[in-house]
Amino acid sequence: MTIELVGTAERTPRSREFSVLYAEVQHFYAQQLRILDAHDAGAWPDTFTEDAVFEGPQLSAPVRVRDGLTGRVRAGAARERRAGSRLDHWIGMLDVRPQADGSLRTRCSALAYVTPGGGGSRVLYVYVMEDVLVRTHGTWRTAHRRVTRDDLA
Amino acid sequence: MTIELVGTAERTPRSREFSVLYAEVQHFYAQQLRILDAHDAGAWPDTFTEDAVFEGPQLSAPVRVRDGLTGRVRAGAARERRAGSRLDHWIGMLDVRPQADGSLRTRCSALAYVTPGGGGSRVLYVYVMEDVLVRTHGTWRTAHRRVTRDDLA
Amino acid sequence: MTIELVGTAERTPRSREFSVLYAEVQHFYAQQLRILDAHDAGAWPDTFTEDAVFEGPQLSAPVRVRDGLTGRVRAGAARERRAGSRLDHWIGMLDVRPQADGSLRTRCSALAYVTPGGGGSRVLYVYVMEDVLVRTHGTWRTAHRRVTRDDLA
Repeated sequence: MTIELVGTAERTPRSREFSVLYAEVQHFYAQQLRILDAHDAGAWPDTFTEDAVFEGPQLSAPVRVRDGLTGRVRAGAARERRAGSRLDHWIGMLDVRPQADGSLRTRCSALAYVTPGGGGSRVLYVYVMEDVLVRTHGTWRTAHRRVTRDDLA
Repeated sequence: MTIELVGTAERTPRSREFSVLYAEVQHFYAQQLRILDAHDAGAWPDTFTEDAVFEGPQLSAPVRVRDGLTGRVRAGAARERRAGSRLDHWIGMLDVRPQADGSLRTRCSALAYVTPGGGGSRVLYVYVMEDVLVRTHGTWRTAHRRVTRDDLA
Repeated sequence: MTIELVGTAERTPRSREFSVLYAEVQHFYAQQLRILDAHDAGAWPDTFTEDAVFEGPQLSAPVRVRDGLTGRVRAGAARERRAGSRLDHWIGMLDVRPQADGSLRTRCSALAYVTPGGGGSRVLYVYVMEDVLVRTHGTWRTAHRRVTRDDLA
């Protein structure tokens, strides 16, 4: 086993660049999923590109986010209000792979916790989220998302 | 859609600075909440500034952390010991906003897992934690904390 | 209380280096635990050094990962397939401490979620993972791991 000494001098621009991207992507998801949990159906589409496509386990075919998914966010919000519960989405275990064209391929695990009105939070489901992120107008946005759920595999 | 090429040259000092802060804050919370879970009532106050204030859902008014909250940490520890259970706090979905005065406004989701003595961990509650962090003597500390809980909203 | 101004100029090489390491280690665990959850018993040993040692709550003595643990990964995979369930491991609350020899001492909280075939994910257990990581051939690998579980303390 050869242990390489890790000094500042050895840090390549690439590894520095990776750490900047990694923080940016974590931050992006914190904002995007907070907007989702807050049912901010106005701000949510803007975290996707104009032509973003979403593939999910409960959809028979991919949908355009801006046409087809925003209504689902509103419907979900209404359901929660009626039920008196709320959802909290988390992501973790993040993989970020920079692509030659400047986009990022990401993969993470995601969790949804539900908290009924009467209390007693619990895990609702565990899923995997695979995105293509692109930077437009200085901001990362999701251009493509594929969600797979463990319990619907 | 315009995809901007993301090269090292485009990285601004600001985005580099952000990634350094983001790692520091994640690291700070890992340490602060581990101290809480270890019931280290000696070390815990030192992760807050001298005059730090805490606002929480179970408090009728904001309390000074060093006067009013340390006793609660001790009481919580005693309760757990009697119950033979333990808590594990997690944070995630972190947002960090640097302020002009050098302080940071942070917002994150937090979870508490409880593990009874007989086993069987479960989510106890989900909350949102909003802090003002300041750097004193080279170390980030919480100057103000506001906790809101989904089940007590 | 003295609030120090946090400007780019004040960032030491050490704090920049830390943020690079912190992102690398988060990324390493995302990959290593995904390999575990995918039951990729071929790739999993390669995330450990040749002579890596594992200490765990269900082991009477430390085992060599490459000799003694890979079989357990295969057995766990077979158990899950029979049960029709799957596990998702998460880590968080990460502490990273660079050592003088270039290795890293890390400590994190970890969670395992189980999703039975019929749905209904839940927390299975909460544990603490303490690693020594070394960089060999340009890649971080676990040289030593100690796992302690709350419910088996």
